[in-house]
Amino acid sequence: MTDILVSEEELLRFGCECLEAVGACHSHAEQHISVLVEADRRGHYSHGFNRLRGHYVADIRSKICYPNNKPSIEKETASTALINGNNSLGAVVGNFAMDVAIQKAKESGVGWVTVRGSNHFGIAGHYSKKALDAGMLGMAFTNGSPYVAPTRSATSTFSTLPISLAAPAKDGDHMLLDMATSNAAVGKMELARALGKEIPNNWALNKEGKPTSDPNEALPSGGGCGLPLGGLEETSGYKGYGLALMVEIFCGILSGSDWGPHVRRWKIQDQIANLGQCFIALDPKAFTDGFEDRCQSLLDTCRGLDPIDPELPVLIPGDRGRNRENNVRKEGGVRYKSEQFASMLKLAEELGVQPPQCLNV
Amino acid sequence: MTDILVSEEELLRFGCECLEAVGACHSHAEQHISVLVEADRRGHYSHGFNRLRGHYVADIRSKICYPNNKPSIEKETASTALINGNNSLGAVVGNFAMDVAIQKAKESGVGWVTVRGSNHFGIAGHYSKKALDAGMLGMAFTNGSPYVAPTRSATSTFSTLPISLAAPAKDGDHMLLDMATSNAAVGKMELARALGKEIPNNWALNKEGKPTSDPNEALPSGGGCGLPLGGLEETSGYKGYGLALMVEIFCGILSGSDWGPHVRRWKIQDQIANLGQCFIALDPKAFTDGFEDRCQSLLDTCRGLDPIDPELPVLIPGDRGRNRENNVRKEGGVRYKSEQFASMLKLAEELGVQPPQCLNV
Repeated sequence: MTDILVSEEELLRFGCECLEAVGACHSHAEQHISVLVEADRRGHYSHGFNRLRGHYVADIRSKICYPNNKPSIEKETASTALINGNNSLGAVVGNFAMDVAIQKAKESGVGWVTVRGSNHFGIAGHYSKKALDAGMLGMAFTNGSPYVAPTRSATSTFSTLPISLAAPAKDGDHMLLDMATSNAAVGKMELARALGKEIPNNWALNKEGKPTSDPNEALPSGGGCGLPLGGLEETSGYKGYGLALMVEIFCGILSGSDWGPHVRRWKIQDQIANLGQCFIALDPKAFTDGFEDRCQSLLDTCRGLDPIDPELPVLIPGDRGRNRENNVRKEGGVRYKSEQFASMLKLAEELGVQPPQCLNV
Repeated sequence: MTDILVSEEELLRFGCECLEAVGACHSHAEQHISVLVEADRRGHYSHGFNRLRGHYVADIRSKICYPNNKPSIEKETASTALINGNNSLGAVVGNFAMDVAIQKAKESGVGWVTVRGSNHFGIAGHYSKKALDAGMLGMAFTNGSPYVAPTRSATSTFSTLPISLAAPAKDGDHMLLDMATSNAAVGKMELARALGKEIPNNWALNKEGKPTSDPNEALPSGGGCGLPLGGLEETSGYKGYGLALMVEIFCGILSGSDWGPHVRRWKIQDQIANLGQCFIALDPKAFTDGFEDRCQSLLDTCRGLDPIDPELPVLIPGDRGRNRENNVRKEGGVRYKSEQFASMLKLAEELGVQPPQCLNV
């Protein structure tokens, strides 16, 4: 079955109209939908339009996200800021906060910003990547609904707590790390379930606390919980758990947002999200000159290593997403499976919005 | 066979005399040896006296470390500094740099310091932990000799590139994360080899690029290379590789030190180490008040989770080391296996230093 191709402009038009249909102003809707388009364009379908209905539309509709609120700075120093997202759309809050971090880094070398009162912001990599335009390193972190169990327990306690780092090299080349500190993002298990596939048995525990390869048992809906990066304790999962604590400290504990098990459950609109997030910008010019050359050399060194399998070259984090983006540019649009596209059509009907037009059907 | 017990004072005396015998001044020797005592006291034997002869004494003896040099600040802003370690002892450089980071954080909320021209500094956790005394969060990172292979390759490219974070809670309680971004530290494989034990087969590749459980094949001396946290690509090892790149960027690329495969090989004194390191201090008071209470609540939440195995309670990173420290305090000294103690006696003889006295034999 042929994939369905939708242009980025059409995705943006459709997504914005959906958010506007439930009450968002155009400029906020545009900021938020741009991040979803970016996710799909880079192949991170689990964090793109896939979440439009269940997360963003549902949160606005049930009046627990206030899409037109503006974030505000509550406290600041030369290189830090505490921001209240005022429960606006995640991307509106994230863009605002990352811009503050970049401005601070311009003035004092580093900007470290924490946020409370935020919502799901899409892919963390969108925010870290903003720093590249200013010739800086960027980092972004977020907390979220509890799913991952600390090592030795089987209790959903932390979200998948991602770490993202963008670092500039030469002529636009860069590294863009964007990784969950769990072994796998929830979206990957949802995808496996949708496709009827098994998952590796170091991704999650079932409700009895045993490793499982059945995505139905692994997902929050089945009472499962995720394992931290590394898996069980004997395969170094305690390190992933340590990283999860680090990200939760950066996001929830520094900012005073909800954290860990106190964040609302997945896709349940019973309380505001009050997520915590953290954004860092760092100006490499504050250190030794020539950062971009050395960074390029680092990336070239890795990409140039002999691969174990000649078919599988050594990559830099972000290369895969960039390749997919290039492909989208070449083809003129983002590819979707027919089920993905069908759910967009359904949402269009539900909201009385013009359905997305595809390029090839 | 009974363990041999040596008091901390005696370890410090013996270690200092060893470094002084090869030319270090007392105050620098004391700073450096204190970190080795701390490592052994916390049970991180791979990073303590175990390294005294092969690393620190050897480097000074072969005149490629200048133990009495003082580090200097080469460039600074309100919240950043670039420090040249001037090839002094690692702990002298690390203590200096972390103090600068803490001072900057006092003034501007955050201090981000990178270092070049440094040497092995022992356990990263020693430096991050210094921030706790100032009521701050501390982070420490270092690069080192190449051993870990980027995902899809079998080439020793990165050191085990540790991440350390210390975060204060109430009444002295805290989290102290100190983890290699590889699946296992080299020291753990050396220990397995010394004890004639197999290692898990997701720690390293042999020289043919295949997973191995034989520490002889796994170690640099056998031509092996380490796997990043997560192991192979299919078990999320690309995330550990991404974290390794992050730490190398913080340490080597920002500072302009040697990095990746350009750092000298393990325990080979053919060139100066010129290591890169990174130290961050962050004042939680720059964000939302009450950090220590919330952090305590986070630690308590995790420690209070139902364990899968009732015999194995959920821990916080650093708990194990602290328990061992308490035990050392109770017993009056650090426990060593007879082989470990024998190598100290050998070193004492070699350097004409009074051998360490033990408490129980």
